[in-house]
Amino acid sequence: MALSTTRQRGSRLLHASTMQEIKDLILRKGLRPGDAIPTETELCEILNVSRSSVREAIRTLAALDIVEVRHGTGTFVGKMSLQPMIDSIVFRGAMAQDSGLQVLREIVDVRHRLDVSIGPSLVQVMKGKRHDDIWRVVTEMNEKAENGEVFADEDRAFHVMLGEPLNSELMTQLVEAFWKIHMVTAPMLGVPTPEDIVITARSHGDMLQAAEDGDLAAYLSAVAQHYKPIIRNIERVASAQQR
Amino acid sequence: MALSTTRQRGSRLLHASTMQEIKDLILRKGLRPGDAIPTETELCEILNVSRSSVREAIRTLAALDIVEVRHGTGTFVGKMSLQPMIDSIVFRGAMAQDSGLQVLREIVDVRHRLDVSIGPSLVQVMKGKRHDDIWRVVTEMNEKAENGEVFADEDRAFHVMLGEPLNSELMTQLVEAFWKIHMVTAPMLGVPTPEDIVITARSHGDMLQAAEDGDLAAYLSAVAQHYKPIIRNIERVASAQQR
Repeated sequence: MALSTTRQRGSRLLHASTMQEIKDLILRKGLRPGDAIPTETELCEILNVSRSSVREAIRTLAALDIVEVRHGTGTFVGKMSLQPMIDSIVFRGAMAQDSGLQVLREIVDVRHRLDVSIGPSLVQVMKGKRHDDIWRVVTEMNEKAENGEVFADEDRAFHVMLGEPLNSELMTQLVEAFWKIHMVTAPMLGVPTPEDIVITARSHGDMLQAAEDGDLAAYLSAVAQHYKPIIRNIERVASAQQR
Repeated sequence: MALSTTRQRGSRLLHASTMQEIKDLILRKGLRPGDAIPTETELCEILNVSRSSVREAIRTLAALDIVEVRHGTGTFVGKMSLQPMIDSIVFRGAMAQDSGLQVLREIVDVRHRLDVSIGPSLVQVMKGKRHDDIWRVVTEMNEKAENGEVFADEDRAFHVMLGEPLNSELMTQLVEAFWKIHMVTAPMLGVPTPEDIVITARSHGDMLQAAEDGDLAAYLSAVAQHYKPIIRNIERVASAQQR
C-alpha cells in the first residue's frame, strides 16, 4: 500500500511537470493561438517522457483549453477560454442543492455588476452614435417576445455586442461566460424564464438608448429593470421551496 | 494511421465521458465539497471502465479543481475554485509577447471595474460602521509603504475583506482571482510595482473611509487614484518598448 501510494504520487508529480513543460515549450517557442504544437513523438523526445505521459498531459491541457486537439490534424495552441471556469461554476450550482438558489443569486448579481461596471465607459464611447447592428438585435428580440418566443441567441448577442466598444477581449469573455453560466444554471434549479419577456426585451432597448444618449443614470436604471424579473423568479422558487 | 487516429479518438471520447460520469456520480450521490468520492476500485466497478481510465479522469478533474487528491488519504470533492481560470489568463499574458501589455491593461481594467461595481452596495452596507479589522490592514500597509517595503499580503487581504460585506462568495473569488492574475502577470511582463507605493497605500484608506462615510463619489475617485500609478507604469513600459 505504501509502495503503491509512493508510485502514484510519483506519477502524479510527473503528470503535473509534463503539463508544465509543454506549457513552457509553447512559451519558449513563441507559439500563438492556432499554431501547431510538436507531435506526440517529438514531445516524447524533447521532454524525455513516455508516450502515455505525453498523451495524458495533452488531454488535461485540452480540458483546460490550453491546447485544442483537432481530429486527424494535430494539436494546436488553444484560444483564451473561460470554459473551465464556466464548467466549474455550473457544477457548483448543480451540487449545491438547497443552496443552489444562493449560487444562482450570486451569478445574476455578478452579471448585474458587470453591466453596471461597463456603464461609465459605454455612455462615453457610444454617446451620439447610432449602433444599427445592435438595434437590429433588439428589434428581433422584441418581435420574438411579442410572439411569446424566447430569444436566447439574440440575448447573448446583445450582451456581447454591448461590451465590444470597450475593446477588452477579457471583459467581453467575462460577460459572455456569466451569461452562459446563468443560462445553464437557472433551468437546472427549476427557475423558469420570466413570463414577462416583453418587459425584459424592452429593457435591452432602454439600455442601448441610454448609452447612445450618454445618460448614465438612465442606463443604470434600465440595467436594474433588466434583472428585476429574473430576481423575482428566483425569490418565487426560493419561497416555494421553503413551504 | 487511420486506425491509430480512430483508436485515439475513441480513447479521447472515453476520457471525456468517464470525467462526466464521475461528475454525475458526485451530483447523484449528493456529495458536497470536502466529501470523499468512491475509491479507484469502486469507480472502475461502478462505471465499468479500466483503472487507467479512472486514474486519468481523476487527474484531469483534479487539474480543474473539481476534485482534490490528498496524498495517502483519498480523493475528495473540491471547493469552488477559479484557479483554472487564473492559470489560463496568466498563460495568455505570458504567451502574448508584444500584446502582453494589452492583456495586462485588460486585467487591470477588469480589477478596476470590479471595484467600481461593488461601490454602490459597499457604501450602503458599510455606511456609519467602523471596520476595525480592515483598518488594521490599512495601517500595516501604510507602515510598510513608508519603510519602502512592498505589502502584497496586506493588499490582497484588503481587497478580499472589502468585498466580504456583500456576502457573495462568487464576487469575492472573482476579485481575488484577478488580484492574483495581476500580481503574477505584471512582473512577468517587466512592469514594476509603482515606486509611489505610499500613494497607493494611502488610496486604500481613502476607499475604506469613503465607504464608511457612505460617499459613493469619494469611493469611486479613491478607486481611480488606486489604479493610476499601476496604469502609468504599464504605459511607461509600453512606450519604452516602442522606442
